[in-house]
Amino acid sequence: MKARVHVMLKTGVLDPQGKAIQHALGNLGFDGIENVRQGKVIDLELAETDKAAAEKNVIEMCEKLLANTVIESYTVEIL
Amino acid sequence: MKARVHVMLKTGVLDPQGKAIQHALGNLGFDGIENVRQGKVIDLELAETDKAAAEKNVIEMCEKLLANTVIESYTVEIL
Repeated sequence: MKARVHVMLKTGVLDPQGKAIQHALGNLGFDGIENVRQGKVIDLELAETDKAAAEKNVIEMCEKLLANTVIESYTVEIL
Repeated sequence: MKARVHVMLKTGVLDPQGKAIQHALGNLGFDGIENVRQGKVIDLELAETDKAAAEKNVIEMCEKLLANTVIESYTVEIL
């Protein structure tokens, strides 16, 4: 079973990588870019075959390792 | 208009960050993790209101800046 996790900085937390991308795109001539946020995507291949159990497991992985929940939020999709 | 870009290392390109996550999860007691790949997600807010034009624009951004197309593949979603 495959899972996809998105980890993004929470709204209000400064995202210097996103700002750097926004400025670089502006310098390359791309106009009308109002905001850019950059985060991480983590694709997991799990041996687990039960969807609910897999989701519970991945949420635990996020809480323990994948996200810093003080400044980051995460979403889990089971594919 | 919002766009989401995923940038992942191409299949076959070694992904040390993914491997590091896989090992760390194993050390934390999570079993049955067969593979982990880590990539980037970039959320863009665009002034453009035409969906097709926005998609074309974002693909150009990927080719020019957001992805290293030698080793990375990208997908664009217009939300």
